Amino acid sequence: MRDITPLVAPRSIAVIGASSNPTKSGGVLFANLAKGGFKGPLYPINKSAADIMGHKAYPALADVPEPIDLIYIVLPQAHVAEAIKQCVDAKARSACIITAGFSEASEKGRTDEDALRKIAKESGLLMAGPNTIGMVNADCGMMGSFVNFPRWERGGVSFFTQTGIFTGAVMLQVMSAETQRLPVSKSIDVGNKIDVDEVDFLNFIKNDATTKVIGLYIESVREPRLFLETAREVRKSKPIVLLKPGQTKEGARASASHTGSLAADDKILDDGLRQHGIARAEDEADFLNALRALAMLPKPKGKRVGIATTSGALGVISTDLAVRAGLELATFDSGTLSAMRTILPSWLEPANPFDFWIGIDVKGPKEAHEIGLGSIFADPNVDLVLCTLLAPANADFPGFGDLMKRLRQAYDKPVTVAIYGGSARSRWITELEGANVPVFNTTREAARALSLLVQATR
Amino acid sequence: MRDITPLVAPRSIAVIGASSNPTKSGGVLFANLAKGGFKGPLYPINKSAADIMGHKAYPALADVPEPIDLIYIVLPQAHVAEAIKQCVDAKARSACIITAGFSEASEKGRTDEDALRKIAKESGLLMAGPNTIGMVNADCGMMGSFVNFPRWERGGVSFFTQTGIFTGAVMLQVMSAETQRLPVSKSIDVGNKIDVDEVDFLNFIKNDATTKVIGLYIESVREPRLFLETAREVRKSKPIVLLKPGQTKEGARASASHTGSLAADDKILDDGLRQHGIARAEDEADFLNALRALAMLPKPKGKRVGIATTSGALGVISTDLAVRAGLELATFDSGTLSAMRTILPSWLEPANPFDFWIGIDVKGPKEAHEIGLGSIFADPNVDLVLCTLLAPANADFPGFGDLMKRLRQAYDKPVTVAIYGGSARSRWITELEGANVPVFNTTREAARALSLLVQATR
Repeated sequence: MRDITPLVAPRSIAVIGASSNPTKSGGVLFANLAKGGFKGPLYPINKSAADIMGHKAYPALADVPEPIDLIYIVLPQAHVAEAIKQCVDAKARSACIITAGFSEASEKGRTDEDALRKIAKESGLLMAGPNTIGMVNADCGMMGSFVNFPRWERGGVSFFTQTGIFTGAVMLQVMSAETQRLPVSKSIDVGNKIDVDEVDFLNFIKNDATTKVIGLYIESVREPRLFLETAREVRKSKPIVLLKPGQTKEGARASASHTGSLAADDKILDDGLRQHGIARAEDEADFLNALRALAMLPKPKGKRVGIATTSGALGVISTDLAVRAGLELATFDSGTLSAMRTILPSWLEPANPFDFWIGIDVKGPKEAHEIGLGSIFADPNVDLVLCTLLAPANADFPGFGDLMKRLRQAYDKPVTVAIYGGSARSRWITELEGANVPVFNTTREAARALSLLVQATR
Repeated sequence: MRDITPLVAPRSIAVIGASSNPTKSGGVLFANLAKGGFKGPLYPINKSAADIMGHKAYPALADVPEPIDLIYIVLPQAHVAEAIKQCVDAKARSACIITAGFSEASEKGRTDEDALRKIAKESGLLMAGPNTIGMVNADCGMMGSFVNFPRWERGGVSFFTQTGIFTGAVMLQVMSAETQRLPVSKSIDVGNKIDVDEVDFLNFIKNDATTKVIGLYIESVREPRLFLETAREVRKSKPIVLLKPGQTKEGARASASHTGSLAADDKILDDGLRQHGIARAEDEADFLNALRALAMLPKPKGKRVGIATTSGALGVISTDLAVRAGLELATFDSGTLSAMRTILPSWLEPANPFDFWIGIDVKGPKEAHEIGLGSIFADPNVDLVLCTLLAPANADFPGFGDLMKRLRQAYDKPVTVAIYGGSARSRWITELEGANVPVFNTTREAARALSLLVQATR
């Protein structure tokens, strides 16, 4: 086991190819690093500039007065090998190769990538990339990404990804959201994964104080058995969600041209993940939704779900979705049923899913929701609460957010929410800010998030 | 076969239980009808009022000077049977029972519902409901719903639904959207489906001039064989998307308490739907997404999909999703590949999925998208275009919407779009307004919509 701290949590950074030209790759990356508030020294390497964005520039890495933890390389493909040699000579501890055009691109690129690995191996230089968007670590203020994230929400989710711009654009969307922003600690994109891999990352993150939840986007697993063993250990304290596409034969082929990943037997990996309690996301939305649920919700005590709804149709739909996602319908306690009856007309018997729309007519929207939602949260047979609610004008009331906050705190049970309706819908969602209640666009997403939460924490 | 025109496209309407009190059910419904611009006479029936919202009120249905096409009944459960008798006596042609508390609620309710059916049967009174949100028909200006839709977007989609408030709240959300609003002709909710059913609706809608696409939300099929035979005929000119939950045993039970539907063998129905080319949605989002795709897109010539992306990861993810949804990856024509090479560096070979992110570096975002998207639209082997794009600042360019509009018009091929990124994402989506290019929240939804489009039109 090796320590990748110099790569993912460096004390000093240099950028080979740094530029003051904001239209150049090396200009964008350096500007983001400089504006990101990195806590250590930041050295631009540039033959002709004396200074870049207030940081003294050096003509070559050899001119920098100290050995550096991490060197970003932002150069044309043909110059990367020479830069890696300079890193080794300067006793740098790690390098992140931003440049693309290696094993994802061609046979020659694969040969070039193998040559880089060979150069670095003897020296022990840690490497990330090539073909990466870069790395962000909120703890040390490293915004080492092409993409600028002015609204980065610090929190407990850490990403390890094996891809290029995907991570950047998806994180940008997540960090641009007005509500329900994902709280993130680190986003480490290793591109083609020349060297540092998912096992190295798991070994590092296991003891990382700020990381509570782990998201892995990978296209290949280098050593499946070691990966599964490591993940099994790490997930005892930090749940893991994995997105690994390429499960169809066409997808596997596409993966080979994306990051040069070779097809492996996905079925064996899939069985191992299930056995070891690593939640596997089906697509990018599933992945982010599961991480949001894990970041906001406590560990469930079981997989018995109570469904709260104000729509009979959504009750039936969500029942199908929950059962297919592997959850069980809870059998409500007799006390719960008694409470539920207080908002129903005498001819109606409550059940799970609990549709309390008619309770709005009987008791008004506020009391109907207080008892409709509250009785399910309170039920001892309910491990998880799935809310799929309607918010037209006649179901609206002041204090929806306060009610959910109170229930979320009082019972500390996992809950996911989907809401349909007009303008009240967006107000309800806004009211849930800070409540640690994840809201999803569809009932399916809300049900899947609960299922992945159970899988990742069981 | 009977004609349900008096129910769904009435020339005259009365409301038993109409009220000028906006907090009462009969007040809300009547106000929506009155404000909706119904083209025929509208008669409030109310014992004590002389006038409601400018419409002369009548103490009883018998006092109205003409036989009425459609009577809405908005009364407490105990008074509904008497009202139905009055409808029969007054030679009304149809009745829509808004009131709940029938077969969805209890055994007594089921007996009551059976009694209503018996009263009406001999007279030939057409009935919708009980337990419904009401009916909207944009052609005759009938906004006969509890929910008010000030921004109703007239168009070619017609709904038939067997549920209560679900239809109202979902339509409200659809009609409140700033972009990508679904164009709707009719929304006929029959609640517990006491009488008029899916077969009656299909026979009516088959010859309805404004309906181009049909969405059915049903919880039971009264006569499966007749339904499938009818649907097979209708779908030749008007594609049908069906959402029928209750596929799990738990879901079937929930359906029984929602609309009193009895469980049937879903597998047989499912096979019939597949055989006859009726697209089956998995959940409420799938349902609406498929209808949006059908409303905006032409009939595909086949199921070969070309994937355009600026993310290798989304390329791999969308390949898995498309293949699993039953689509085939197109093999690009040599001319297409030549065009694609003009935006790639020499070491990179284009493939399907076509990831042209690097083309943005090579040629700039505008030309990369023009050629990246344009070459796929132009390819003779591509029946469907799936775009999953990234919109961070460095991929942004003016005229994204114009480009898509031009390609959509020039090639008339079905296309669905998912976009990730920050502020440019919302601008790109706004630019697509009026382009008949459906945008979805996730890659999965974009792939599923293409698949359902193929199933519904093959």
